[in-house]
Amino acid sequence: MAQSANDRLEAQFAFLNEADRLKSVLRATTLVDGSRPENSGEHSWHLALYALVLADQAGPGVDINRVIRMLLIHDLVEIDVGDVPIHSANGLAHASVETTTAEAKAADRIFGLLPPDLGPPLRALWEEFEAAESPDARFAKALDRVQPVMANLRSGGGTWATYNVTYEQLEARVGSKIARGAPGLWEWVQGKAKPWFLKGKES
Amino acid sequence: MAQSANDRLEAQFAFLNEADRLKSVLRATTLVDGSRPENSGEHSWHLALYALVLADQAGPGVDINRVIRMLLIHDLVEIDVGDVPIHSANGLAHASVETTTAEAKAADRIFGLLPPDLGPPLRALWEEFEAAESPDARFAKALDRVQPVMANLRSGGGTWATYNVTYEQLEARVGSKIARGAPGLWEWVQGKAKPWFLKGKES
Repeated sequence: MAQSANDRLEAQFAFLNEADRLKSVLRATTLVDGSRPENSGEHSWHLALYALVLADQAGPGVDINRVIRMLLIHDLVEIDVGDVPIHSANGLAHASVETTTAEAKAADRIFGLLPPDLGPPLRALWEEFEAAESPDARFAKALDRVQPVMANLRSGGGTWATYNVTYEQLEARVGSKIARGAPGLWEWVQGKAKPWFLKGKES
Repeated sequence: MAQSANDRLEAQFAFLNEADRLKSVLRATTLVDGSRPENSGEHSWHLALYALVLADQAGPGVDINRVIRMLLIHDLVEIDVGDVPIHSANGLAHASVETTTAEAKAADRIFGLLPPDLGPPLRALWEEFEAAESPDARFAKALDRVQPVMANLRSGGGTWATYNVTYEQLEARVGSKIARGAPGLWEWVQGKAKPWFLKGKES
């Protein structure tokens, strides 16, 4: 095998072995059965499966294969930065300058492990996800917001209880993103989530 | 929203919530850092990322997007059956009649949760993976065999030590599958794995 082919495989596996660390990054959300916090590796798998199964909820022009690729890599920067829960710090930490700066630095390092023909396109795909402007990214973001809602509903409130979230905050931080990328899905999810918040207020 | 659209979403989420249980199925292989057993959900994510990054190792006619989809669903039957380690029972448990019968029953149940236009195609994709005959399935199988090798190499032997695996057994149970789907990859992996087994024999 030529030295260059070897070097290429070394770089590919440096990235793949580094990516393994995402399995040790814990999220605020638990598994559906509430047994333990979810990690960002298995979360990324679950989201890719969401895209596969909920493809009919995507708007026109969405390329599901690109969405799946985007979701597979969307959280890799958390290896360096950790997961920043959407409802933490009263909803202000998630998109703070500190977080986005640290994440850009992490992206430099992690995607930089790959050979030059692979790293930059994957980094660009991650940036597209973060910007949440393209149809693919909007749909991917919507799924990223739906999945914790489903886990919270099954596990008795989850992060909504942890962070004392109101229904209005859920609409602002989560619903708006889901409605933007998958409006039909938000209509359905709303019907599931609302009763939990109403019940909380009555008790 | 029409009742039928609601029913469809109920079925899609029945499947997606059930799939969450794959995160609680433990494998014999550990994380790369050896800290704990890997679960089959995060393993499925890691393999999909392998496909994305090692696409240039696939043979002609391989559709990487199909390979990724295949890898996302390839272990779902383990929700009912559990993971059957490749080196357990002297390498005989993995493809036993008992295992394959139980997995087929699990596939009936799990893919059967989905709407009729989604379940059967995904079940067929899983069967294609299991048969390991099509170019896509051969490449997917090869990646499924490479990933534990990389984890074992980093974690000091892992399942090779647990099951007293010889290099000849690694070649028969693992190498043959990798060589069939990704020959260039096996050449490289071999060079990494052999020294571990030689070192084991000397000590």
